[in-house]
Amino acid sequence: MAYVDIVTALALLQFVVFGIKVAKARGKYGVKAPAVTGNEVFERHFRVQQNTLELLIVFVPGLFLFSRHFNPLWAAVLGVVYLIGRGIYAASYVKNPAARGAGYGISALPTVVLVIGGLVGAILLPLGR
Amino acid sequence: MAYVDIVTALALLQFVVFGIKVAKARGKYGVKAPAVTGNEVFERHFRVQQNTLELLIVFVPGLFLFSRHFNPLWAAVLGVVYLIGRGIYAASYVKNPAARGAGYGISALPTVVLVIGGLVGAILLPLGR
Amino acid sequence: MAYVDIVTALALLQFVVFGIKVAKARGKYGVKAPAVTGNEVFERHFRVQQNTLELLIVFVPGLFLFSRHFNPLWAAVLGVVYLIGRGIYAASYVKNPAARGAGYGISALPTVVLVIGGLVGAILLPLGR
Repeated sequence: MAYVDIVTALALLQFVVFGIKVAKARGKYGVKAPAVTGNEVFERHFRVQQNTLELLIVFVPGLFLFSRHFNPLWAAVLGVVYLIGRGIYAASYVKNPAARGAGYGISALPTVVLVIGGLVGAILLPLGR
Repeated sequence: MAYVDIVTALALLQFVVFGIKVAKARGKYGVKAPAVTGNEVFERHFRVQQNTLELLIVFVPGLFLFSRHFNPLWAAVLGVVYLIGRGIYAASYVKNPAARGAGYGISALPTVVLVIGGLVGAILLPLGR
Repeated sequence: MAYVDIVTALALLQFVVFGIKVAKARGKYGVKAPAVTGNEVFERHFRVQQNTLELLIVFVPGLFLFSRHFNPLWAAVLGVVYLIGRGIYAASYVKNPAARGAGYGISALPTVVLVIGGLVGAILLPLGR
């Protein structure tokens, strides 16, 4: 189970790093709070963080469910794929938003697999035990 | 406990579907990333997703806490009410944002009940056991 | 473990209160859905809620991980610091966004400590047991 918790913590810290980049971009490009628009590069960093938030709310419980009803090691492997995909997503989005597709897919696909796997496992569990 | 996990997974997948609708609306109405404004229908889909995110962060741990400190079956029942409410919310918001109240209430109310129930259960637990 | 669950529930309810304030500000300042801009005071309430969402997605699993791999009581203490910090953050942001730094730090710091503590604990756990 510890592998899953390590991957969870790393995904949370990756998201914290994205948040720090938003805060830095806010200062660098002079986007004063509460505004979240006004500079294209700031908006890219902000959208990376927001999109990761949208995925993280699915990823963290998905990791837990897949680990519980299937297999913790496979959950952790899918989690590492997510981490790599999000890294690619963030780097490519900031350079060129139109190129964000690959990184998005590499992080969104394992997230959906975790949830669907967790769902199937949870449904079959009463039969299997 | 499996009922609660099934409802959790379904709520996550419902949110993923809302996200897919945002991505489709982005393409259909030509809202280029990183922008999240510029077309009213896109903005409705986007707000459905964002508002669901705001509720999901409360719903998922709330379901867990209520299940742990009260009753897993009742947690799952409240979770199904949430799922139905969110479906109504999404459908009505996209048609007419002013009509979003009913679906909002049907999904927000069970969410708050889950958290308050979980809190009361957690406080009474050391006395009760 | 109940202390951690009580703090979790309180953090969720605090976030619900921030959401209610956004809804009230929406009505008071006439910001019609799906818009989330157009009035400075509304935007401050909205950013308090959104920023808390960004922190909550890290805080809730972080609390769980720290509690599991270190110590539930210390997790709860750090959680109470977070709750106080968020209260200060919300109050100061609405008055003056430029003054949000202190409350932000008092809530973000324990959150990061929870995650890093949980990570270190999860890594050392297989050795320690």
